[in-house]
Amino acid sequence: MIINRGIFNFKEPFALECGEKIESFDLVYETYGELNKEKSNAILLCHAFSGDHHAAGNDKDNIPGWWDQIVGSKKAIDTDKYFVVCSNNLGGCSGSTGPLSIKKSSGEKYGKNFPKVSINDWVKSQKMLSDFLEIDKWLMVVGGSLGGMQALEWAITYPNMVKKAGIFAAAARSSTQNIAMNEVARESIRKDPNFHEGNYIKYNTRPKDGIKAARMLGHITYLSEDHMDNKFGRKFQDIESKVERCVDFEVENYLQYKGKKFSESFDANSYILMTKAMDNYNIGESSEDLEKNLENIKASMLIIGFDSDWLYPPEKGKEIQIAAINNNIESSYVVLDGQQGHDSFLFSSEIYDDLISRFLES
Amino acid sequence: MIINRGIFNFKEPFALECGEKIESFDLVYETYGELNKEKSNAILLCHAFSGDHHAAGNDKDNIPGWWDQIVGSKKAIDTDKYFVVCSNNLGGCSGSTGPLSIKKSSGEKYGKNFPKVSINDWVKSQKMLSDFLEIDKWLMVVGGSLGGMQALEWAITYPNMVKKAGIFAAAARSSTQNIAMNEVARESIRKDPNFHEGNYIKYNTRPKDGIKAARMLGHITYLSEDHMDNKFGRKFQDIESKVERCVDFEVENYLQYKGKKFSESFDANSYILMTKAMDNYNIGESSEDLEKNLENIKASMLIIGFDSDWLYPPEKGKEIQIAAINNNIESSYVVLDGQQGHDSFLFSSEIYDDLISRFLES
Repeated sequence: MIINRGIFNFKEPFALECGEKIESFDLVYETYGELNKEKSNAILLCHAFSGDHHAAGNDKDNIPGWWDQIVGSKKAIDTDKYFVVCSNNLGGCSGSTGPLSIKKSSGEKYGKNFPKVSINDWVKSQKMLSDFLEIDKWLMVVGGSLGGMQALEWAITYPNMVKKAGIFAAAARSSTQNIAMNEVARESIRKDPNFHEGNYIKYNTRPKDGIKAARMLGHITYLSEDHMDNKFGRKFQDIESKVERCVDFEVENYLQYKGKKFSESFDANSYILMTKAMDNYNIGESSEDLEKNLENIKASMLIIGFDSDWLYPPEKGKEIQIAAINNNIESSYVVLDGQQGHDSFLFSSEIYDDLISRFLES
Repeated sequence: MIINRGIFNFKEPFALECGEKIESFDLVYETYGELNKEKSNAILLCHAFSGDHHAAGNDKDNIPGWWDQIVGSKKAIDTDKYFVVCSNNLGGCSGSTGPLSIKKSSGEKYGKNFPKVSINDWVKSQKMLSDFLEIDKWLMVVGGSLGGMQALEWAITYPNMVKKAGIFAAAARSSTQNIAMNEVARESIRKDPNFHEGNYIKYNTRPKDGIKAARMLGHITYLSEDHMDNKFGRKFQDIESKVERCVDFEVENYLQYKGKKFSESFDANSYILMTKAMDNYNIGESSEDLEKNLENIKASMLIIGFDSDWLYPPEKGKEIQIAAINNNIESSYVVLDGQQGHDSFLFSSEIYDDLISRFLES
């Protein structure tokens, strides 16, 4: 599989949905496979909250991409056939312009002053990347979770540029409970004494403890109760491998480990602005509004929900499907078993892989 | 309704399940109604995590008890007929001996050195209170959530002292997800810089921020997703009534308010030890173990679960019911609608009230 990494640099001011402008921005991206002459085999992957542009293959540290089970040679999204693109979202902390980037006009890092971004802003910036790559139409725009929201937003915003949309483990809007969970996570970050109201860069520190607690909570919401029961049950952690003295059960040790690891790399201001973008996503309060907002979609859609997902449960996908049907949009809605809860969208299974590859070939 | 408040002082060392002894302890309690001559109308209420001995009527600050909808004159647990007792659990922070109490032999507050308590310890201390009150047999021991676990533990530990057991929104053991959620809450508390590894009393401070975040998370788990949707939806908080500047949505404001209020009164070391007691409760890993541990129960049981409860979902009650049936224990298992999620056990409804009062009269 050919992996290329690029940086798209947009040099002009970019108007965001919030009313502010960002003076210029970079999007770092990876591509897999080759674009055909007709430019008809391009697929855009949209990443979820903690994902990035590294979707497939191994990077220089030998870390596989977030969708490596699905994207690659002879996989569901077959890079022998398709040209696959994935960019890191604006406001993130993995290479694209975000709170850790330097604002050219001031010579200082944006930090907490990075403007509020929305899912629509992400889609618009990805559209600019498409223009740069000279791709007029994506064979498919696809993603899970927050990535599925972007795929849906793509189909709405650029109906002529999306042939197929894959919307997995996603929703047309964040629920009250989604918002509530994100607010607890943000509260942990804001109350970390190293947060300094978002100005931690100036203090040469980072609110790692807050990010850690936030991620521990996030992690619980990504897994199903059954999956946790099967994986950890009520087993006690053996003393030698405790990552923290306070830990009794294996599940606690696991969350401590995962939270700590995440806190070492993720930026707190990115965490806050990306969860806010998620919370604010709403393409229709009522079913009537949702239906109306989907009316211009030309893409055919594959909507997949997972039984064990309690963060964006299958009913959220069903809602999109109903609105699609009422607009005569060609659309399939499938609920899969998915043992891994919300995270199920990340993992290959025979039926999931088949659904994706057949949808692409249809 | 006659409300009496008392303090039971046990002056001798009390051996805890963990192997440590507590040199003496107080249990603060309230009673409602009057004990009849035969002493056959006594009911023991066991409180949940953040409850206390104030279960019914209004206290001096005019605050109703945690089960005031259920307990009182002409209510489901009718204090015109029954003598109702509720004590604050050992290790709590509402008057019974706990981390904020002074250890007599040292003259200092226990703080983080308060020994580890278990649900069995609570039941044993309540048994001592029963002896003090000269009650040989409870007509009913009843509670919801952590209180339901105590009611079950009573029926197991003192089979001759419990005529009926009411086990509501409870489980025979905490699930992996329960433990995980509690660990995130504890993590928030431990990482509050005012926690000082549990020694905050010595620093004359309290880890309020950590308790606040912990409570915000707890609160989400007590409510159902539908209830939150119906109550708050995606409504924005009006600017004038924001409790924190960072808040956008009503649900965030609500959690901020509730969390802050709770953090002003609850003790962090109590929070940690009570959630640990909950996590550690396990009366049988397998259905066989559970069945075996229930075999001596003589009480008849009323097990109630609530459809919208995702913290201790109805299946957890069903598990107890199956083990009870296999032991020929007289037992009823009912799943109620309960719009309020886990908190449903706190609220009166016609069918819930009827079930309780008929169970008492049966």
